[in-house]
Amino acid sequence: MANPTSKRVRRIFEGLDQKVDAVVLMNDVEPNLDAMFPYLTGTTSGLFESCLVIGWPDGKVELITVALEETSARSSSAEVKVFKNRADKAELVKDTLGKATTIGVNGHGITLSSMNEIKRILPKVKMVDVYPALERARAIKDAAEVERLRNACRIASEVADEIPSFVRPGMAEYEAAAEINYLMQRKGASSPNFETNASFGPNTAEPHHEAGPSRCRKRDTALFDFGARHLKYGSDITRTFFVGNAWKWQKEMYQVVLDAQLAALDMVRPGVNGKDVDAVARDIIDASPFKGLFIHTLGHSIGLSVHDGLRMGPGVDLVLEEGMVLTVEPGVYIRGKGGVRIEDDIVVTKKGCELLTTANKELTVI
Amino acid sequence: MANPTSKRVRRIFEGLDQKVDAVVLMNDVEPNLDAMFPYLTGTTSGLFESCLVIGWPDGKVELITVALEETSARSSSAEVKVFKNRADKAELVKDTLGKATTIGVNGHGITLSSMNEIKRILPKVKMVDVYPALERARAIKDAAEVERLRNACRIASEVADEIPSFVRPGMAEYEAAAEINYLMQRKGASSPNFETNASFGPNTAEPHHEAGPSRCRKRDTALFDFGARHLKYGSDITRTFFVGNAWKWQKEMYQVVLDAQLAALDMVRPGVNGKDVDAVARDIIDASPFKGLFIHTLGHSIGLSVHDGLRMGPGVDLVLEEGMVLTVEPGVYIRGKGGVRIEDDIVVTKKGCELLTTANKELTVI
Repeated sequence: MANPTSKRVRRIFEGLDQKVDAVVLMNDVEPNLDAMFPYLTGTTSGLFESCLVIGWPDGKVELITVALEETSARSSSAEVKVFKNRADKAELVKDTLGKATTIGVNGHGITLSSMNEIKRILPKVKMVDVYPALERARAIKDAAEVERLRNACRIASEVADEIPSFVRPGMAEYEAAAEINYLMQRKGASSPNFETNASFGPNTAEPHHEAGPSRCRKRDTALFDFGARHLKYGSDITRTFFVGNAWKWQKEMYQVVLDAQLAALDMVRPGVNGKDVDAVARDIIDASPFKGLFIHTLGHSIGLSVHDGLRMGPGVDLVLEEGMVLTVEPGVYIRGKGGVRIEDDIVVTKKGCELLTTANKELTVI
Repeated sequence: MANPTSKRVRRIFEGLDQKVDAVVLMNDVEPNLDAMFPYLTGTTSGLFESCLVIGWPDGKVELITVALEETSARSSSAEVKVFKNRADKAELVKDTLGKATTIGVNGHGITLSSMNEIKRILPKVKMVDVYPALERARAIKDAAEVERLRNACRIASEVADEIPSFVRPGMAEYEAAAEINYLMQRKGASSPNFETNASFGPNTAEPHHEAGPSRCRKRDTALFDFGARHLKYGSDITRTFFVGNAWKWQKEMYQVVLDAQLAALDMVRPGVNGKDVDAVARDIIDASPFKGLFIHTLGHSIGLSVHDGLRMGPGVDLVLEEGMVLTVEPGVYIRGKGGVRIEDDIVVTKKGCELLTTANKELTVI
């Protein structure tokens, strides 16, 4: 597949609020790496600590990289410039950006130390925060991005479908999480996309529960929220099961959440506002005995980050466009008893949406 | 165990190059979280996205946290202030820091966006980069930190000792990595400390190889470099094995690396310079048939980050002090054939050092 980063750069420039000569992303050291760095390089491996990537208005991309990462760098379509030490690096930065008077940087990705390093090399250059343009550009995924997300979603879906085969009473949450992570990696994930949430019983009522030592008991609700990272892009899926048997209230709860999700999915298409999609799901829940118990927003965009910039929620204006990749995840939570959430990842298509996660979501007793 | 963060804050102030009224760490959103944030809070869970922690010269610590993280925040000994929205947060920041004229920030941890947010709330405050003082403070681990590192090292050691029981010809590198990660999580690791490196055959000659689809063959060298993260602190261990049988050159290579490591470990004590420890190991390798093939530095400090600020290497002045926690990891690499590295984590003690990783390192054929 051709490297699409030239188009990405041009899209960033189209969305700028003010003129800049170049867009410059710079990594500090782990964990302070700019999540958007691979957006401009298109690379699938490498950390690129202390490296820079520069995008120009004509779509040209230049990557100034440390020698250690040269192999990874060569997999990108960027023009690669390699440094061995700080003096080399300063020379390359000066050669590349010496004529720029204003450069755009990522306010949420660049550290004070990186900015100071640029200032020492280019004392006259003005740096402006172009984060909004970066966010706008990455909101619409191109074919290469959708392909990576599709694979990340496939891995998560396959693992979700295996959950009923290994969860059983007596298992600790962290054991279930370890199993999920193991299966994802065996299927090609480079890592979990975020800390895998496996919760049993009353813990399922906490949307952001961290898997702990609680053990699964008969009659528990069991909720699993996880995702796979694959070639830098990550998925996000939630499935909820019932252990041994489902009480009537559990079945009702599940059906309401599923109805809400299906109605929301049915409404997604270009031109529709995300807050209206949220409202369709919320109205179904609020017309049920579980009124008021959907305590978070309907979904968020995914990509290089788990929360990739966009949200569908009450009061959030977001006109959907073809190529957006979003989660749709209504839930209902009863404190002290349990919760149900069903989450899928979708890509907005010309006329509607395509499910990227395809795991079974019919009510399942394990 | 008493929360030791007051002492940490006082140590930071003792190491400052210029006077500041307060030290302020601020997180952006994942992945741009300040790795030193938990150093001041002492917390073991929670992300604290967009939150601030403030240390004062008298050792007082204040944590300004979003409501979502309140449970995690309460586990710290900091004075906790909770905000629900941006306006709340601005009010709390103003109340807490309104009288400060100069605040110290972490240049390698704070983003442009976070700095701009502080500037909007406190337009007159001056921000200075106090990273060097932060680095100096965290170089010496206190008892609570060593305890967490000890557990992270124990988990990694136990898994290292299990490797010969599951690696066999035909296994892919990523399968071995998945197995290692799974075992670490089952033993209580919250995550791998970095991307687990499992390499077979010629790949073992690349110090930073990423586990891929290569499969283990008889007569391969097999190298595993990994660590466990536990309560935010992470370990780092490498063990090298031979599959089926070891050629004479492999045995020689292993013995030279082991001799180099043991000699280095034997030399570690307070007052010794890290470059001299590196030299002891390097001299042994350079006096062998593997001269010139130890192509990296001897070790680095570990803690909240995998590379925690300090290095032992040629030309790097580092006078060892009690409480430093470092890796000792000589290696020898023959391109196209294979490499051997043996890595342990140590804490510098009054009279020498203690091994925190305790896995077997006698030559093992699997």
